[in-house]
Amino acid sequence: MSDGSSDYHSINLADKLSLFHERWQPKVIAELNDYQFKIAKLEGDFVWHQHDDTDEAFLVLSGELRIDLPDGHVDVAEGELFVVPRGLRHKPYAASEVEVMLIEPRGVPNTGDAGGDRTAESDAWI
Amino acid sequence: MSDGSSDYHSINLADKLSLFHERWQPKVIAELNDYQFKIAKLEGDFVWHQHDDTDEAFLVLSGELRIDLPDGHVDVAEGELFVVPRGLRHKPYAASEVEVMLIEPRGVPNTGDAGGDRTAESDAWI
Repeated sequence: MSDGSSDYHSINLADKLSLFHERWQPKVIAELNDYQFKIAKLEGDFVWHQHDDTDEAFLVLSGELRIDLPDGHVDVAEGELFVVPRGLRHKPYAASEVEVMLIEPRGVPNTGDAGGDRTAESDAWI
Repeated sequence: MSDGSSDYHSINLADKLSLFHERWQPKVIAELNDYQFKIAKLEGDFVWHQHDDTDEAFLVLSGELRIDLPDGHVDVAEGELFVVPRGLRHKPYAASEVEVMLIEPRGVPNTGDAGGDRTAESDAWI
């Protein structure tokens, strides 16, 4: 919320999350240098993939996310952060709806090396 | 929380925040490529400064932060994100305690170009 005396405004995550309902379609809300903050709603299973050139951060805003990894999994609850290291295969899974914020470089596709029909538009702002 | 079957663990922000009480002393909790996630507790006034080489993101976890800017200010409430553009002078202010997560490149000093005795250790992990 700004006082109106400057051109700068903070970004309310809950307000932004209320603007869309699609699952697995990350929406950009801000940039930091050449990185982007994206919010997304996840439910059900995703595809195994990896990002060879970058780490990827997940901050869970609501719900509980499971990230399957080659040798186990990590549960990421509301208020928790997990950074998937570059090159590590992973598969997000949400038993019920999870709201997350992703932080990663501009232009990283959500399906990484896997591609396919789960690939979302990579620079969709909301 | 991990299930113990992998070496990877999520980071609980509230747990990390419970480990220290100092104000204006950012603590690194994770890295994303050459960027760092830092948590900090803020109360009272800081110093005017700028970061000439990088944007700086503030995500407010509790309380309400005011960031004074050259031509006004922005109020950043709990659950809100604000990215200070590179080169823009700013001064954080917290009327009562605010908990924040900062995201910025590794090695950025909290006082930017201003330096002085409010400068915190720049790579303190917790």
